[in-house]
Amino acid sequence: MAVYKGPVKDIAFVLNEVLDVASLATLPGYEDATPDTIQAILEEAAKLCENVLFPLNRSGDEEGCHYENGVVRTPKGFKEAYDQFREGGWTAVTCDPEYGGQGLPATVGFALQEMFTASNQAFSMYPGLSHGAYEALSRHGSDELKKLYLPKLTDGTWSGTMCLTEPHCGTDLGMLRTKAEQQPDGSWSITGTKIFISAGEHDLTENILHLVLARPEGAPGGTRGISLFLVPKFIPKADGSVGERNAIRCGAIEHKMGIKANATCVMNLDGAKGWLVGELNKGMNAMFVMMNAARLGVGMQGLGIAEVARQSAVAYAQDRLQGRSLTGPKNASGPADPIIVHPDVRRMLLTQKSFTEAARALALWVGMLIDEAHRHPDSARREAADDLIQMLTPIIKAYFTDMGSECANTAVQIYGGHGFIRENGVEQLVRDARITQLYEGTNGIQALDLVGRKLPMKGGAAAQRLLGVMSGFVAEHKNDDKLKEFVEPLEKALGRVQDAAFFLLQNAMKNPDEAGAAATDLLRLMALTAMSYMWARIAIAAHKGLAAGNDNAFYEAKLATARFFTARVLPQTTSLNHQIKAGAATLMAMPAEAF
Amino acid sequence: MAVYKGPVKDIAFVLNEVLDVASLATLPGYEDATPDTIQAILEEAAKLCENVLFPLNRSGDEEGCHYENGVVRTPKGFKEAYDQFREGGWTAVTCDPEYGGQGLPATVGFALQEMFTASNQAFSMYPGLSHGAYEALSRHGSDELKKLYLPKLTDGTWSGTMCLTEPHCGTDLGMLRTKAEQQPDGSWSITGTKIFISAGEHDLTENILHLVLARPEGAPGGTRGISLFLVPKFIPKADGSVGERNAIRCGAIEHKMGIKANATCVMNLDGAKGWLVGELNKGMNAMFVMMNAARLGVGMQGLGIAEVARQSAVAYAQDRLQGRSLTGPKNASGPADPIIVHPDVRRMLLTQKSFTEAARALALWVGMLIDEAHRHPDSARREAADDLIQMLTPIIKAYFTDMGSECANTAVQIYGGHGFIRENGVEQLVRDARITQLYEGTNGIQALDLVGRKLPMKGGAAAQRLLGVMSGFVAEHKNDDKLKEFVEPLEKALGRVQDAAFFLLQNAMKNPDEAGAAATDLLRLMALTAMSYMWARIAIAAHKGLAAGNDNAFYEAKLATARFFTARVLPQTTSLNHQIKAGAATLMAMPAEAF
Repeated sequence: MAVYKGPVKDIAFVLNEVLDVASLATLPGYEDATPDTIQAILEEAAKLCENVLFPLNRSGDEEGCHYENGVVRTPKGFKEAYDQFREGGWTAVTCDPEYGGQGLPATVGFALQEMFTASNQAFSMYPGLSHGAYEALSRHGSDELKKLYLPKLTDGTWSGTMCLTEPHCGTDLGMLRTKAEQQPDGSWSITGTKIFISAGEHDLTENILHLVLARPEGAPGGTRGISLFLVPKFIPKADGSVGERNAIRCGAIEHKMGIKANATCVMNLDGAKGWLVGELNKGMNAMFVMMNAARLGVGMQGLGIAEVARQSAVAYAQDRLQGRSLTGPKNASGPADPIIVHPDVRRMLLTQKSFTEAARALALWVGMLIDEAHRHPDSARREAADDLIQMLTPIIKAYFTDMGSECANTAVQIYGGHGFIRENGVEQLVRDARITQLYEGTNGIQALDLVGRKLPMKGGAAAQRLLGVMSGFVAEHKNDDKLKEFVEPLEKALGRVQDAAFFLLQNAMKNPDEAGAAATDLLRLMALTAMSYMWARIAIAAHKGLAAGNDNAFYEAKLATARFFTARVLPQTTSLNHQIKAGAATLMAMPAEAF
Repeated sequence: MAVYKGPVKDIAFVLNEVLDVASLATLPGYEDATPDTIQAILEEAAKLCENVLFPLNRSGDEEGCHYENGVVRTPKGFKEAYDQFREGGWTAVTCDPEYGGQGLPATVGFALQEMFTASNQAFSMYPGLSHGAYEALSRHGSDELKKLYLPKLTDGTWSGTMCLTEPHCGTDLGMLRTKAEQQPDGSWSITGTKIFISAGEHDLTENILHLVLARPEGAPGGTRGISLFLVPKFIPKADGSVGERNAIRCGAIEHKMGIKANATCVMNLDGAKGWLVGELNKGMNAMFVMMNAARLGVGMQGLGIAEVARQSAVAYAQDRLQGRSLTGPKNASGPADPIIVHPDVRRMLLTQKSFTEAARALALWVGMLIDEAHRHPDSARREAADDLIQMLTPIIKAYFTDMGSECANTAVQIYGGHGFIRENGVEQLVRDARITQLYEGTNGIQALDLVGRKLPMKGGAAAQRLLGVMSGFVAEHKNDDKLKEFVEPLEKALGRVQDAAFFLLQNAMKNPDEAGAAATDLLRLMALTAMSYMWARIAIAAHKGLAAGNDNAFYEAKLATARFFTARVLPQTTSLNHQIKAGAATLMAMPAEAF
């Protein structure tokens, strides 16, 4: 059976020993976010995950959501769990105190998101989407909208969605057909069909706020004629209580591969009443703010799934007796050895571990950069942090979710035939994880975002900033004998990134398909290099811990995992570099009809 | 929606132009297996797949099998399809004419197996398992058993299973507990519980013949005390009609990730009557004959799934309009370009295509080697063919099924969010394909078979035979300018295999964990090298075709795909070589409790 414990110890190690989480409390507004407070929150969250959310994960998948006459029923126990989640204040953690939030840093939100997803991805999407709506409204909504809606999103009595996709357009939102007509009272009448709306209808909250992309009458075609509207399921009265039913209705729910306990809805808008969020025709900008935050969130889902898969695989490998070690019995008194004695099983477990631990460090570093970008008094520091976030967002979304699926599949592989059986709970992880590579922009779109928007951003300055951080690190630690085994391979990987980037610089201006052809491999190359950088930073912390002389096994395991990553994962950068330099012709030569 | 057409043209290209299928008819007993006859069979099979089996694939998944009181009902339409399959003679194609079979070569069986799986994996397992039982009985059964049972397996009125796994033992059959007691009449009374029995109970045939591994009373422990028994569901009367119900019953069916239309049964034997197949205590040997054939069959399943996934992805990519080409509109009069214009979509499609086409060539080459090993008059030729089959069996099983899953996942990725929706039919391919990496020995076990049994076999002579075939090819074509682009990279890949093998030779004797640590990466390295070899052979055929001057687009596409493989897939061999030489310490250093 799948198992899960919140990895509080490892999160705390990253926050306190690899990063400097204490520095958060020096940012204005985060004075209360001390390491002790954060630790207490993590421990409480872990309890909730272990005792409430995780036990509902299998049953939620088995039961799924039910649709009847526009009404969606979530699986048994979800409503009670949501009430507990809401009453515990978990919807409010990073929200603004002005609207009833706890005002804690994004870093804390990231750590929680990993645990919530790991324990129950389908459940965690309900509050997760509400938070996306919160972000969009709080950045772009009028004061009036904010006063009316944000307190409800903060306390979780209302939830939110993002309504972007239509049957004929997903990636290419320029083809969007949902239309909006302004009404005499300043509101808008919105008509169209939206599909793939996660949490579009359900029975967890008293109201649902839909953020809907639509094209106002007379607006230009393409993406420049799209605006963002707030369309509530029930139109609130002035006192914030729920009023009249709005003309936005769920027409069906999708039958899906996974995340079955999260309702994926077809939403029909038939002259639904809505309010403009942000500027007219600037809906794509407002949406992209939300989308970038959401992409990092999806990356965290990849990490969360990888972690629960890893823990489940480790437990099984330590428990399942089958065969003998190649070097002689390790459990001579038993009928066989636990399968963790086998090198190939360890290879799989270490692939998972070497991903989750450095990915966690990378993600929490980005969490701290987000807090810095929002709150640091020095504008240069804010800008620097934002550059790194921009660069790392598509990398984290695509690489973490690819690895989430890989780690989930690895767990199934370690379980053998038993992994294919539903009741053992690991095949669900594969099915749930699969969506993360698709939604909020497929991973191919992330790679295009990296090569097409992020690398050229500010004339390449943001990319240079990221590479500069890593090469600065190499220069600083190059002569440290203890770190050589990690810093030298990092330096080589960085060299491959520069080599590949130079190839693009030379070729992609002449032929834009060169950028598209390199995109996915370059994203992976940069991701592995960033992971190598984090492993080197973790190694520094591990050596410090060893020098301090307590919990040696923990720190030794960090070094062993770093060595595995360096010797058995990082070498992929060599082939990626070859593949990138193969160029676009290898992809574009064949006529479309010859496939 | 998923689509499928039997790839008869490509199979015929491989058989006639890459291989020399006409040579089959020179083998004794295969005189009738002319290229024309084979072509006619392939075309008929494709029709059956397209019109009967494929249309039942989605509905079968949706409905699944139903269990009630020991009875299993297959999904709607399966019984009718099975009757049509049986009446068309498809269960008899490669069976011995002595028992009513058509006596066609294994090569033909391989080509059919690809198409049957591609169109309906769950369905094709029913006759597939019967054929496994046919093989085991025909090689190891007494004349009496053969006369009674083989005609029924041949005409498909009875079906078969393999009963190996028990709750506490899968890979490690030495722990097997099912026991057998000899009866005064020479039969055996068998008692125990078997799990994961595919097609263990169903409503397609009037009888089911179970091949059961069990431990006779007083037999030694471990694998040396295991015998193989035939246990029919109904005990046949002497005239071949169905008699008394035997004490082997289905206690439950598993709820699984995929292949839901194939019943995976718990089988309870309660003093069931059985007959010994082969020698006492030599059950593992008899089972391994069956298993090796089954492993190649599972490899063909990987190829089949990859092909239906590829075809479905191509159709979607040519049809779905979304975004514009980076180099300017290619469908200017439409609202957007088909997504096949995007380099990253082509990268995914070519990854599929470069796998399926060379894998098909590799598999059919092995098919011809099997026919040669069975029928060639020259014993040296038979032995040489058998060496190659032995080496390639774990490679084909593991690599083809890993790629089957990868290609199915790639199809989902190309469909985007629509790929996650059940009714579109591609996510089913991911779920169905997943089992192929697990059953008939997990892919980790295949890798161990390669390094632990096949490489050392005959003092390394079988491995040398395989490498010799490829290096002989390199020597022969090295100076052909037209082939340089394929032969040089093949030579380098071969060098990496030799380098890795040399590393093992130096290290694995001292520390057997070195073999285990290298196993999976070495299998992949050898698989990619074998694929490179097949692409070079395909390129020769393509150049011949081009010189003949007809169907140029077909042959140009072969060369373009070969170039893609060489430039963008084969480079993985460089990192694999690094990873292998990282050695076992990177895996074994960590104590089991530190994971």
